[in-house]
Amino acid sequence: MAPSKPVCLILGAGAGIGGHVAKRFAAGGYRIVLARRSDEEGLHRLVDQINDAGGEASGRLIDAALPDTIEDLVTDVEQAAGPIDCALFNLGAQIGNRALADTSYKAFEMGWRLATFAPFRLASALLPHMAERGRGTLLVTSATAAMRGNAGQHSHAAAMGGRRMLCQTLNAEFAPRGIHVAHVVIDGPVDAPDTLGKMLGEHFDAYKQSRGDDGMIDPAAVADTYWHLAHQPRNCWTHELDIRPHGDTPWWNDN
Amino acid sequence: MAPSKPVCLILGAGAGIGGHVAKRFAAGGYRIVLARRSDEEGLHRLVDQINDAGGEASGRLIDAALPDTIEDLVTDVEQAAGPIDCALFNLGAQIGNRALADTSYKAFEMGWRLATFAPFRLASALLPHMAERGRGTLLVTSATAAMRGNAGQHSHAAAMGGRRMLCQTLNAEFAPRGIHVAHVVIDGPVDAPDTLGKMLGEHFDAYKQSRGDDGMIDPAAVADTYWHLAHQPRNCWTHELDIRPHGDTPWWNDN
Amino acid sequence: MAPSKPVCLILGAGAGIGGHVAKRFAAGGYRIVLARRSDEEGLHRLVDQINDAGGEASGRLIDAALPDTIEDLVTDVEQAAGPIDCALFNLGAQIGNRALADTSYKAFEMGWRLATFAPFRLASALLPHMAERGRGTLLVTSATAAMRGNAGQHSHAAAMGGRRMLCQTLNAEFAPRGIHVAHVVIDGPVDAPDTLGKMLGEHFDAYKQSRGDDGMIDPAAVADTYWHLAHQPRNCWTHELDIRPHGDTPWWNDN
Amino acid sequence: MAPSKPVCLILGAGAGIGGHVAKRFAAGGYRIVLARRSDEEGLHRLVDQINDAGGEASGRLIDAALPDTIEDLVTDVEQAAGPIDCALFNLGAQIGNRALADTSYKAFEMGWRLATFAPFRLASALLPHMAERGRGTLLVTSATAAMRGNAGQHSHAAAMGGRRMLCQTLNAEFAPRGIHVAHVVIDGPVDAPDTLGKMLGEHFDAYKQSRGDDGMIDPAAVADTYWHLAHQPRNCWTHELDIRPHGDTPWWNDN
Repeated sequence: MAPSKPVCLILGAGAGIGGHVAKRFAAGGYRIVLARRSDEEGLHRLVDQINDAGGEASGRLIDAALPDTIEDLVTDVEQAAGPIDCALFNLGAQIGNRALADTSYKAFEMGWRLATFAPFRLASALLPHMAERGRGTLLVTSATAAMRGNAGQHSHAAAMGGRRMLCQTLNAEFAPRGIHVAHVVIDGPVDAPDTLGKMLGEHFDAYKQSRGDDGMIDPAAVADTYWHLAHQPRNCWTHELDIRPHGDTPWWNDN
Repeated sequence: MAPSKPVCLILGAGAGIGGHVAKRFAAGGYRIVLARRSDEEGLHRLVDQINDAGGEASGRLIDAALPDTIEDLVTDVEQAAGPIDCALFNLGAQIGNRALADTSYKAFEMGWRLATFAPFRLASALLPHMAERGRGTLLVTSATAAMRGNAGQHSHAAAMGGRRMLCQTLNAEFAPRGIHVAHVVIDGPVDAPDTLGKMLGEHFDAYKQSRGDDGMIDPAAVADTYWHLAHQPRNCWTHELDIRPHGDTPWWNDN
Repeated sequence: MAPSKPVCLILGAGAGIGGHVAKRFAAGGYRIVLARRSDEEGLHRLVDQINDAGGEASGRLIDAALPDTIEDLVTDVEQAAGPIDCALFNLGAQIGNRALADTSYKAFEMGWRLATFAPFRLASALLPHMAERGRGTLLVTSATAAMRGNAGQHSHAAAMGGRRMLCQTLNAEFAPRGIHVAHVVIDGPVDAPDTLGKMLGEHFDAYKQSRGDDGMIDPAAVADTYWHLAHQPRNCWTHELDIRPHGDTPWWNDN
Repeated sequence: MAPSKPVCLILGAGAGIGGHVAKRFAAGGYRIVLARRSDEEGLHRLVDQINDAGGEASGRLIDAALPDTIEDLVTDVEQAAGPIDCALFNLGAQIGNRALADTSYKAFEMGWRLATFAPFRLASALLPHMAERGRGTLLVTSATAAMRGNAGQHSHAAAMGGRRMLCQTLNAEFAPRGIHVAHVVIDGPVDAPDTLGKMLGEHFDAYKQSRGDDGMIDPAAVADTYWHLAHQPRNCWTHELDIRPHGDTPWWNDN
């Protein structure tokens, strides 16, 4: 491998935001490492698409909920692929709306484990490397649930609210050392077959149709915004931004 | 015991906010149940003070980090003391400022376990009882770290950010059913010997002096505000408010 | 007049929040000065009710949109009634939802003049007196429009957003000097015949009925919260809180 | 003039953000119209730079505080230069920190007139044109004072708080009609000779030096972010983002 390519590591690399960020950064000259929990076939397809298009990508299946997986991944990638210049934490923890009585302790803890603790683990493993180099970007996909807690979102909102504060504490400690942590509030449905698509199943197409033209967030467009964030010069960094389709009501407005 | 007294359960009943809420609610006609993790002597002293003043209080030592402790407490209190009309979750998870490298996974998880998961457990155990009765109040002491993440606050801010969102999801589900969840942002130092006092040790007095008259939040005054919150009629409920000494800069302002 | 009674000045003293704050503070030992723009009969009725109940009140009609009215009022009251210990700014500027095309420059400016500039004028006239005495409270009734801008709220939201920031700048300058500025976000319909009642006219009763028991904010309950805010000791001040009926969705949640 | 070029109108076109947005959008294929209040020579220099670089620009001096100036500008530009596809409102109203006693009514009103009313006037004049075409972008440079009110910022914060809410109401009404309103919170010093440079005068260079490498926001970098915002597809719009130098403490953190 040519050592000159910067590395972009993506945790949560499905066919939605993760995959499109992979393609966008590959096209922009990054060596891509994709990680996801399941669907080896989907992972290979994504890796092949990038490599076929002249990019450079590899992939791994890891379960971010298990001990050492994220930590080992960072170590391995730093050694095998090169210095990680940009990482995307793209794992969510949305489990749909559940009343308190239907939200088990296990579900509540799993929300935290995936949505708050996992990015903390990634930061703990990765940011010392970046800090040593005085540069790096950590992009964090987040959700409206980080901003307000809706009914039924006990697990998800608590986890995402923690994630948002974590991004701020990371930024407070590491931005002065050259590391950019960006918290992106996705405030609308993403046209992502691997997440929303799987949740809605056979109803996904009808749902898309019901939202009309440009009614769902195109993950390729999100990837362009992530690219922009990752390449803001360090005198001009954005810590937080929101994204939604033009026809959607922002979370702060009445429906 | 006269069955007519409403019960107020306090988790985190030291000599600061918890103890003063106990005294205020006892004076207002509540039967008080105090729970704290350690210092049996301090617990007894508080219980005695309340009973000596004509109130009615009992106390227990429980470790909220352990399984079943909070759940059993709620069950016991409901059976032995009567219907819990008001509960105060008053446990914090401030461990001081620590760089990311000094924030162990264990510390990060303990922050969540005490500051996010414990109130979720309390809500899971208690709110069904309250919902059945169509009334009840859950007061939650919180911190500025729920609003923004400062450097060194990785564990605390992530946990408190989760706590704040949890209060919102609880409110969203249970306010229409008659249960008031109030999130109180304590944005300044409390004159509390058991928490800040212990952190500062022998320097506590000098610190207090340095802050001048009315430079520290009087926990008795906080207790009055909690009393007010708990007795707003259900057509006029406050979900969130902030508290600080008059001379302090609010968290949103520059120092 | 006995000089010992503290004075409470109320701008926007109709039969809703303003009138009930008047009654609450009169009952608590304040000499009340009521000011409103119109309805002399309603003003007299309120003054008479307070005086008949053993309180002490007087009233004036002033148009807060006109030059010198607020300033002269403060001067007169300080001289005639005594030092103003508490003032309530209770004027709104809600004109209903209007598309941008239907929001005239005049309407936009009037929103600012009543909702942002008028409290600035009140503060400019009153706070120097309070600062000299090292004490005082300025209560400001505000609205959800101070927190987010809904469709059709161009004038109202811009004015209320300015009001909120003004409360923060006043607090930043004057809290250390002993003056408490409290910004109260009324996030629901108030059972107020003079404002919402007039807007809805003959439909007011049906609207109230449709909201069920405790479905509208009782202005007397708001007055109790204002009383509490005005009597927090200066080591324990709340700058902002929200209020809504228990069955209402908070502004930050989806409907 | 070739009718095919989209037009970008810039209000507040000095040598900082305004001028750099002009150059960026000219390079990207827009016909630029620059408007500023004074410094005809500086305006011509900017216009010449753009035209010399192969772009297309013209400029005008207008006083946005005067009646009809913004409205006439929009009408003229739509007729003479073509449909305005993107407009930047880049006028501020920072007058430095002033105690309440030193903030005249005139200064308070001027803050509103320039920072809240002027963008309302621009929106009132421009958005109907854009709505008819079903597309357009309104970029609004804003400041930390829109988010919180610091001591001494009575005029500025009240005006900027109003501006922020206005952007939300505009977005709520017009985003569904294809118009993107973006509110950009500049949370740090911009390396802008015409604004900060003039405020600091001979101290500007020393100030810059004191902030170190990348210690001030490069307006050219801001222009890149504005370009990105203006070209997000309508399924992926950002309403608000913040910008600061990496070494600066965000407004929500303690210094």
